[in-house]
Amino acid sequence: MTASHDIDHTHDPALRSWVASANTPDTDFPIQNLPLGMFRRAGTTGSFRPATAIGDQVLDLIGAAELGVLSDALGAVLRTCEGMGLNPLMSVGPDFRRQLRHELVAALNADAGPTSSQTLAPALTPLADVELTLPCRISDYTDFYTGIHHATTVGKLFRPDNPLLPNYKWVPIGYHGRASSIGVSGQTFRRPVGQTKAPDAETPSFGPCKRLDYELEVGALVGTGNESGQPIAIGDAERHLFGLVLLNDWSARDMQAWEYQPLGPFLAKSFATTISPWVVTMEALAPFRRAFTRPDGDPRPLPYLDSPANREQGAIAVQLEVHLQTRAMRDAGEAPTKLMCSDFAESYWTVAQMLTHHASNGCNMQPGDLFGSGTQSGPTPEQGGSLLELTQGGKQAITLPNGEQRTFLQDGDSVALVGRCEAPGRRSIGFGPCIGTVAPAVTG
Amino acid sequence: MTASHDIDHTHDPALRSWVASANTPDTDFPIQNLPLGMFRRAGTTGSFRPATAIGDQVLDLIGAAELGVLSDALGAVLRTCEGMGLNPLMSVGPDFRRQLRHELVAALNADAGPTSSQTLAPALTPLADVELTLPCRISDYTDFYTGIHHATTVGKLFRPDNPLLPNYKWVPIGYHGRASSIGVSGQTFRRPVGQTKAPDAETPSFGPCKRLDYELEVGALVGTGNESGQPIAIGDAERHLFGLVLLNDWSARDMQAWEYQPLGPFLAKSFATTISPWVVTMEALAPFRRAFTRPDGDPRPLPYLDSPANREQGAIAVQLEVHLQTRAMRDAGEAPTKLMCSDFAESYWTVAQMLTHHASNGCNMQPGDLFGSGTQSGPTPEQGGSLLELTQGGKQAITLPNGEQRTFLQDGDSVALVGRCEAPGRRSIGFGPCIGTVAPAVTG
Repeated sequence: MTASHDIDHTHDPALRSWVASANTPDTDFPIQNLPLGMFRRAGTTGSFRPATAIGDQVLDLIGAAELGVLSDALGAVLRTCEGMGLNPLMSVGPDFRRQLRHELVAALNADAGPTSSQTLAPALTPLADVELTLPCRISDYTDFYTGIHHATTVGKLFRPDNPLLPNYKWVPIGYHGRASSIGVSGQTFRRPVGQTKAPDAETPSFGPCKRLDYELEVGALVGTGNESGQPIAIGDAERHLFGLVLLNDWSARDMQAWEYQPLGPFLAKSFATTISPWVVTMEALAPFRRAFTRPDGDPRPLPYLDSPANREQGAIAVQLEVHLQTRAMRDAGEAPTKLMCSDFAESYWTVAQMLTHHASNGCNMQPGDLFGSGTQSGPTPEQGGSLLELTQGGKQAITLPNGEQRTFLQDGDSVALVGRCEAPGRRSIGFGPCIGTVAPAVTG
Repeated sequence: MTASHDIDHTHDPALRSWVASANTPDTDFPIQNLPLGMFRRAGTTGSFRPATAIGDQVLDLIGAAELGVLSDALGAVLRTCEGMGLNPLMSVGPDFRRQLRHELVAALNADAGPTSSQTLAPALTPLADVELTLPCRISDYTDFYTGIHHATTVGKLFRPDNPLLPNYKWVPIGYHGRASSIGVSGQTFRRPVGQTKAPDAETPSFGPCKRLDYELEVGALVGTGNESGQPIAIGDAERHLFGLVLLNDWSARDMQAWEYQPLGPFLAKSFATTISPWVVTMEALAPFRRAFTRPDGDPRPLPYLDSPANREQGAIAVQLEVHLQTRAMRDAGEAPTKLMCSDFAESYWTVAQMLTHHASNGCNMQPGDLFGSGTQSGPTPEQGGSLLELTQGGKQAITLPNGEQRTFLQDGDSVALVGRCEAPGRRSIGFGPCIGTVAPAVTG
């Protein structure tokens, strides 16, 4: 049985594609990546179809199958994805997905030559000319809290002497999130309105959020699920995972502070969540696996969350960044400014542990279920994955290159998450854009 | 515009049906009820079809349309429900649903006479011969916390001097729940396994839940939704609601205590939730509306949660009960024993307020979204809606009629929720069964 960590010829850094733009060093989508998503030609109203991104092009996978480039079995599964998302492909498991990767590499690599490029030309559309939507139907969305630096910094704001709660190093803490308001990169959402209560106020008030924030997260999508009552062993978890996206867990801090006791965040989060449209598959991530380590003295995970494979390569190195572009910057043609960077390999729990823990009580997972990783802050104060952290709870504004200041987000602000995997001797791959924009609140 | 509170000829207590069993005083399903659900003949594998219950019979609504008894427009909507749930009917709004009710009363009432009964005979199946499934596809499930007696009693277990948190009387507290593990009455689920930590233990352990509990709740199903960013005014909320079911929010108390800080309940709840298969529509509930009142001195809801209609008849009187049948009782042929009763009219927030609050931040609701009410305990200790309350946190076992004792649920226990609406001069209606059974944990 092949494992999703396994490296094969599709990861060869020397591989090049006849799609020339896939061979430039800075592309997110070289032939070693081949992320999966759902597209249609911009300006049309047809159904969305499964696709991969290669350089600056989108390859229609049903089209590729019709052109005889993919096997019949794959073509049949891909056709069932049309108009509904990648869920059917997710449900058939990792071996099918690996086969798709191998067939795509065979068709798209430079050695496939002019015949292949002529054959596939009708199935390619420039990325600039397509509309992308959510990669799958997300039945359930769960947000974890695996960023220990985030949990520590935020905990300090409330409990200076005891920032991490006693369960943190034992339990992959998570909570159910709202699925209906998950949108894809490009999402513009209204500033939420809600109840807040100032510390010195007698009663709460109702109005637009004043402390609107982003959270830098990685999203993991479930491939095959499990039956109710049947947990997923840690050794099997990787085979149930489909791939990763970037995820922005927009947060209304003032609403959160007032509402979250005793049952957790609710309206402070449910107004919008943005993910990137391209799923970087577990296979594409194989060269970027890392040992799962913890600081000396921290407890070893309980046996149900521990396995040799998880220890040896459970972590995934994704270089993460947050970029902010205000309306003034956009109007002046100024590029977004980088606010921070961190590494997903520092997550306190692995994606396999998140899945195994989630199913450990018998809860049934379904293809397309989404897990947020929790905010991925780095260890230093400059590496906060949210404005709450970067501004010390709104006390210390950050100054942008154009002189503007921010404690929290203002209307018109766009936040872009960036994710890129790099390793010595390996072709770098990226996640593509994950951008969301704040529109003014609806009031009155 | 007709409001869902409005009483019309379909509520006339003198109405009788030519389905004789619908006229017995103790039926849950007289002609004044006409709940909606999804059925197929037991033992078959065809797709589930929309239906109503009348006495001890199920009426196939697509069949009724094909027999010419329902209008073409209704028939067209009902056909799109086949195999997928009531969501299409939910999405077309309350006027369509009211029309369905009126057409059904016209066809099923005793004055419709022998022609109607002969015409419709092929569309009737005894309830005893059908299989029922979830009434709709539930995209998102939210569990509220509107039972103030429950919140107070449970709060006292943790904070004797300050049982209710400061936000309770201002915010309809809620959290996102797991949709995938919602099952319909008849659900049997495995006792969950998970992490717990004894107060005197150094480290947590992993094993079957030792404090498994039920929670007596009412579920509200959303009819028409709202666009993202567009809140639902309190005055419009009733028109967005489809109807009510009973809901058992199974809870693993020992897991909950260890995991719930700081983000709320997660695996302590996500293993199973059971709802009743028949949705009692908002129209059927019209005679049982009550004024929404609060104790003197409690704050008035903020304006976005306040309206004259909500004050005058926002509450809904549903007499609720919990019955327990242990395996020993079942083996001995003993009936379930009643553990408590309460009234949904005492909920601290109305279903309209739950919906308006949920959408107030711009979160988009979808047809078929489910809200749990939170545990509906009554004001006295004997009216606890969970074993946690009835046994004072497991300290005081209850004794069953056969001499068995319970602090929390044991394997083989079945819990049945009962809901019934009664009002002077009105025909009583009921919710039908909501039963779930505990199977042994999967271990090893």
